[in-house]
Amino acid sequence: VRTWAIVVAAGDGARFGAAKQFATLGGVSVVDRSVTVARDACDGVVVVLPSDAAWMAPDGVLLAVGGATRSDSVRAGLAAVPADVDVVIVHDAARPLASRQLFDRVIRAVAEGADGAVPGLAVSDTLKRVRDDRVVETVARDGLVAVQTPQGFRADVLRAAHRVGAVDTDDAALVEADGGTVVVVEGERRNLKLTLPDDLVLAEALLDGARA
Amino acid sequence: VRTWAIVVAAGDGARFGAAKQFATLGGVSVVDRSVTVARDACDGVVVVLPSDAAWMAPDGVLLAVGGATRSDSVRAGLAAVPADVDVVIVHDAARPLASRQLFDRVIRAVAEGADGAVPGLAVSDTLKRVRDDRVVETVARDGLVAVQTPQGFRADVLRAAHRVGAVDTDDAALVEADGGTVVVVEGERRNLKLTLPDDLVLAEALLDGARA
Repeated sequence: VRTWAIVVAAGDGARFGAAKQFATLGGVSVVDRSVTVARDACDGVVVVLPSDAAWMAPDGVLLAVGGATRSDSVRAGLAAVPADVDVVIVHDAARPLASRQLFDRVIRAVAEGADGAVPGLAVSDTLKRVRDDRVVETVARDGLVAVQTPQGFRADVLRAAHRVGAVDTDDAALVEADGGTVVVVEGERRNLKLTLPDDLVLAEALLDGARA
Repeated sequence: VRTWAIVVAAGDGARFGAAKQFATLGGVSVVDRSVTVARDACDGVVVVLPSDAAWMAPDGVLLAVGGATRSDSVRAGLAAVPADVDVVIVHDAARPLASRQLFDRVIRAVAEGADGAVPGLAVSDTLKRVRDDRVVETVARDGLVAVQTPQGFRADVLRAAHRVGAVDTDDAALVEADGGTVVVVEGERRNLKLTLPDDLVLAEALLDGARA
């Protein structure tokens, strides 16, 4: 199946305190790490950047300019994906430690018939809903998974879900809302999302651990 | 305030594949790491062990034998906590990287008037509910936190919540169900719970990162 990836690197990193996708991790920028694995796993890559970014794209990688919301940015990427592509992967640049194997699992699940496939990890912490620092609910944990990117979709299904102009930080939720079937494949603990500055320390530790 | 900790190390590590509390992390056993920080932060410590464990308790640490459920094990620990203690901390031995500062935050929140206090981290991953590997719901994330241990409680409140013999893997949920007020203090990313064998690799990486 012909597969392209959209690497979303258009955020402003408000919680991180800087544009985290350009932070350096083990001597390589976060976005470069994410693009490298996407290129290995897919036939083509579009990177969606902020309008003011000065990033040097590797040969053959397409660029698109992000919009006001993450969904606008994904749509900007989708517009650059060739019409004959079967499977589209959406990946957050801020998850630079996703493995090639994880991309392959997601692509395979879509190739085998799902409308969408997302990596998920069983939630092992208890979850509570908090209002004004006070617990108001303990959430039932049965069947709960924390989902990651790369997320994969049948190209026509993802285009249809995005055509309505809906806004969600999670592409799978748009496909679900559109009636699509989304399956979960096993995620990776090390595939953390850089959200807070501390996460970069954690990611460095994981990289060092992998090298040792 | 007079504070004791119950370190729960009575699980059989079914998902981990072995008694994870006795695994070695950076040359020191997981349970020894957890007990060391609990002793630093509290006036006394009870460790709840499986009936067949051969663990050498440090001077002054009390031992109790675990029961059939985690709640039974906590009750076994509670029975060994002196009657004049004001605050009881319950901590999973399988979280060996919790810091002294985290224990202090939890104790302070209870000393300042809460019935219970738990460390929580804002959930940054999208959560979905899965049935037969298929997504059936995307869970609203507003106000959701993933909670950790050490959890702290007013001793009388925790004893009352446990007196009814309820069973829950989360002590705060018992206190909430009993009408108690539970507050959330900032948790720690590095305070992961050893659940799967991979988590030990992650914890080693975190330890190495902290040393570097």
